[in-house]
Amino acid sequence: MQTPVFMPVGTQGTVKAVRQSDLKNLNAEIILGNTYHLYLRPGHQLIQEMGGLHKFMGWDRLILTDSGGFQVWSLAALNKITEEGVRFQSHLNGSYHEFTPELSMEIQLALGSDCVMAFDWCLQYPAERSDAQLAVDRTIAWAKRCRTAFDEGPRLPDSDPALFGIVQGGVYADLRKECLERLKEIGFEGYAIGGLSVGEPKTAMWEMVEAGMPGMPEDQPRYLMGVGTPEDLVEGVRRGVDMFDCVMPTRNARKGTVFTSQGRLVVKNATYARDQRPLDESCKCYTCRHYTRAYVRHLFQAGESLGPQLATLHSLHFYLNTMQEIREAIEAGTFGSWSQNFLETFRQGES
Amino acid sequence: MQTPVFMPVGTQGTVKAVRQSDLKNLNAEIILGNTYHLYLRPGHQLIQEMGGLHKFMGWDRLILTDSGGFQVWSLAALNKITEEGVRFQSHLNGSYHEFTPELSMEIQLALGSDCVMAFDWCLQYPAERSDAQLAVDRTIAWAKRCRTAFDEGPRLPDSDPALFGIVQGGVYADLRKECLERLKEIGFEGYAIGGLSVGEPKTAMWEMVEAGMPGMPEDQPRYLMGVGTPEDLVEGVRRGVDMFDCVMPTRNARKGTVFTSQGRLVVKNATYARDQRPLDESCKCYTCRHYTRAYVRHLFQAGESLGPQLATLHSLHFYLNTMQEIREAIEAGTFGSWSQNFLETFRQGES
Repeated sequence: MQTPVFMPVGTQGTVKAVRQSDLKNLNAEIILGNTYHLYLRPGHQLIQEMGGLHKFMGWDRLILTDSGGFQVWSLAALNKITEEGVRFQSHLNGSYHEFTPELSMEIQLALGSDCVMAFDWCLQYPAERSDAQLAVDRTIAWAKRCRTAFDEGPRLPDSDPALFGIVQGGVYADLRKECLERLKEIGFEGYAIGGLSVGEPKTAMWEMVEAGMPGMPEDQPRYLMGVGTPEDLVEGVRRGVDMFDCVMPTRNARKGTVFTSQGRLVVKNATYARDQRPLDESCKCYTCRHYTRAYVRHLFQAGESLGPQLATLHSLHFYLNTMQEIREAIEAGTFGSWSQNFLETFRQGES
Repeated sequence: MQTPVFMPVGTQGTVKAVRQSDLKNLNAEIILGNTYHLYLRPGHQLIQEMGGLHKFMGWDRLILTDSGGFQVWSLAALNKITEEGVRFQSHLNGSYHEFTPELSMEIQLALGSDCVMAFDWCLQYPAERSDAQLAVDRTIAWAKRCRTAFDEGPRLPDSDPALFGIVQGGVYADLRKECLERLKEIGFEGYAIGGLSVGEPKTAMWEMVEAGMPGMPEDQPRYLMGVGTPEDLVEGVRRGVDMFDCVMPTRNARKGTVFTSQGRLVVKNATYARDQRPLDESCKCYTCRHYTRAYVRHLFQAGESLGPQLATLHSLHFYLNTMQEIREAIEAGTFGSWSQNFLETFRQGES
């Protein structure tokens, strides 16, 4: 895997609206799957019986699975959170379940994930310092249990997964540093910054990234979870982030807003009804090579599923191509000037 | 265009759930667009401004447009039908419109259609003989007006459209013969059998096809509108039909039922939850080469749009490939044995 990398989100074993061959054509090297969703439907045992998530969904490149922690916290009806784990009700049918660090490992190993995330304790924003401390303490306790369960758990054939620890600590820089140090004592194959992009100001988010980064081992991947906008990718890379994931390019696209080199474009707007230009005039993606804004707008107006499909292809291309350009600029030692140009053009279009 | 041919239906300027490049890869030579839908949204003037439907939707092969007659009859709130035309309310927003033979020609020429259909008078089933006679008389009167409006109407640049007459007459064989003779007196570039597949028994449908076929000029295309199942394609070709269109492969696919060489397969059924076979074991389509029934079933269960997409790709491949096999069998003089094998296998699976 080349880094820095952006990981398209494939919640339910599919990156919504596109095909696995599209992702390959877009040079996606790794995609994300959601433990919570796949556990509930179709179930990790079923996927394991089918040979694991790679085989089930026809994807032979890398897969990172999240721990389920964020989803039980944000999606499920939360019933009880204890030192043991989280008891919750399914958002699908109200059935009762309990996630523990051990079960999260069991599920992710059954899926055959390449990058397994430790089951962490999420924290709302804003949160008191004492709650943030509690989240760190519990995250560490769970991280230890994850390490053990992961190390001792069975692997799918040909599976050689890595386990990532997740830094919590709210918007308290010292707590984040403490959390990272304690995670490093346990030892992981990669480190993630979690619990950000949950409503805190952007400045606070970058402060937390800056607090966490210097302590992270340079030879291991550093993953900023759930981030972000194209600007965030650049800002994150500047601060040393290697891995990103976000639903923004895909979710926004399905609703008719795409990302371009000149900022966001709300293609379903009436102003594009007769616009014969592609979504992004400097883009080489399938959508921009074949279709006009007028046509894509018509598809959205008419409720045709080709609209979300073409918009998703474009926005994923934009994100993945931006990361490609970032990697090339880093290689060439021109990341500073590249990012200045990129951000200037993007922000001009946004304003 | 090679015949016999099946035309995928692209109602609103898109064959639902798939890309134009998919249609090319499936060797679709001609697709259908709906005059009624495109007139209402985005409007034929807009499409004309964009250079016509081919350019608007990025499709450089043939397009046949229907006349709008069937849709105003079946979809719109019908307000008044007179000798002049049909006044109706849009199914989208209730706005009032009137279709006349002249307007139908104007719209289809503005779209840049390659095969323009005459505006015909549709008939419910069952219908009295006197109503069927009236439908024939009015269809003929409108066909004359269509011929004139079509011949005198403006063309898009590089457009060289053909006009098809439509045979009506309900389930009365002599009326259908009369209608065809009167259409031939006017003279058209192709002839279509309309007003079937509207609830009449299959036997009555084939009787009407058999009544109409012998009188049709052998050197001009013969089109059986809105038909049908894979069996119908074979039965139609046996009776001399050159062109077919039907929403069945695409609409059923979007709802989780696909066509295979062994009959219909309801892939969303629980019985396929762990089925590692492709949708059709003898199929070479994209879906069958890459995905299992278990995965496609999961996509439908989870409401993921990749499900309808993959199912549509498969069923269109099955229809278009079946037509390809039919053409090859005809060429090789083996259509009789080919169709016997095909129908036997298909019907065994259906039973």
